[in-house]
Amino acid sequence: MMHALADAVDPDQLNSADEMEERLREIGATRYHSLHPFHTLLHSGKLSKGQVQAWALNRYYYQSSIPIKDAIVISRFRDRDIRREWRHRLDDHDGSDGRDGEDGQEGGIERWLKLTDGLGLSRDLVTSTARILPITRFAVDAYVAFVRERSPLEAVASSLTELFAPGIHRQRIDGMLAHYDFIHPEIMTYFRTRLHQAPRDADFALRFVRARARTPEDRAAVCEALVFKTNVLWAQLDGLHHAYVTGQVPPGAFVPEET
Amino acid sequence: MMHALADAVDPDQLNSADEMEERLREIGATRYHSLHPFHTLLHSGKLSKGQVQAWALNRYYYQSSIPIKDAIVISRFRDRDIRREWRHRLDDHDGSDGRDGEDGQEGGIERWLKLTDGLGLSRDLVTSTARILPITRFAVDAYVAFVRERSPLEAVASSLTELFAPGIHRQRIDGMLAHYDFIHPEIMTYFRTRLHQAPRDADFALRFVRARARTPEDRAAVCEALVFKTNVLWAQLDGLHHAYVTGQVPPGAFVPEET
Repeated sequence: MMHALADAVDPDQLNSADEMEERLREIGATRYHSLHPFHTLLHSGKLSKGQVQAWALNRYYYQSSIPIKDAIVISRFRDRDIRREWRHRLDDHDGSDGRDGEDGQEGGIERWLKLTDGLGLSRDLVTSTARILPITRFAVDAYVAFVRERSPLEAVASSLTELFAPGIHRQRIDGMLAHYDFIHPEIMTYFRTRLHQAPRDADFALRFVRARARTPEDRAAVCEALVFKTNVLWAQLDGLHHAYVTGQVPPGAFVPEET
Repeated sequence: MMHALADAVDPDQLNSADEMEERLREIGATRYHSLHPFHTLLHSGKLSKGQVQAWALNRYYYQSSIPIKDAIVISRFRDRDIRREWRHRLDDHDGSDGRDGEDGQEGGIERWLKLTDGLGLSRDLVTSTARILPITRFAVDAYVAFVRERSPLEAVASSLTELFAPGIHRQRIDGMLAHYDFIHPEIMTYFRTRLHQAPRDADFALRFVRARARTPEDRAAVCEALVFKTNVLWAQLDGLHHAYVTGQVPPGAFVPEET
């Protein structure tokens, strides 16, 4: 698949929702982090256990910031229907504790901690987030700030990377199980769950931006929000690659034990 | 019940959680809007239908801003347990639509709209919020800004007016049903539901501030947050009283039809 990477989003090419959707899919095809060399290494079994640990440890900061981001998105809307639609994302990530007669349900963050447990990382190390790369923190915090500061339309649009998530999750489940003896099915439940959650979320967000972006300028802002978000994801892998593949771990960051 | 209104919150008198709780209850006893003359008129049948309409119309803006405020509170916490505890407030106010196999459940905002329906106000008039008093909007928006800008401890503390809510709700249900021929039990479900929701919410918030306010200065900040919130509620009634009892309706605000 060859795609030229078009950096600029040109409103003149965004005269309809269909044109915008086409552009969004091009952005995914050229910028989504499935294309990052670090993921190729991760999914094809080329990383050491320590490198996989570094990835899971850093990615925890992203995972654990998602419900914070989603609560901010909810707070941006006076429209109750949109708040209700978005609310299930909090449930999906934070889980529920089984009070109030609900069934207790582990959430995405708990599932991510099963992965880090399975990789032999202590919960304290992971949940303190003290040893993550500064690049991880900067990128994730920029995402949270984006949904707070930009328009509600752009806040929703920044979630559109979920359109492209099922492919990478499938690759990851299959590739990691096939290639690493330290990866077992029970620690991969996060990704299996996201296979059906992400499409539902992405469908809503796509319908929302198609309906709400009414001018070429709005549509360009939607596309730019998706570009921004692909940068948030890509930068995290750049940081991991530089630290743990190239080997230049910055001061204070996690150093894997020799394995 | 005679209480001197102590404006200043003195950290020297706040050396324990018990001293703080005592101070919080004093603030409620001297400042909660149950004491406002407008509520005395409302609950004792002294208002016209048009005045009750003005109250319900304005209060809708407060009600409909509560889930926005609560989503911001959720976004202030990295601690998943607190986010989960606070999340049910979104359900309580926004309701749920019965997708995903949940039972659909009307929320507090929908219940408030039953009250405004019952009072003969059109949904468009109410939900547009175009005809509310500027004072209402300023006070409510100040509350939303407070939970965004102050510490998470103060954000939680500002919800502590719920400690005092069941009393006023009981008064309101009994008083309004007894005194107004245009008030029927089925339009008062908002208040009946809050009779059991508010104590649960208040219990959590009180336990939270008792545990998290560890210094006299923290405890003073908690007390000041409650004072702030009582001012938010009181100012709304001042606005209503001036416009609809004294009779000086500001330009652009709702004018009741002659009844």
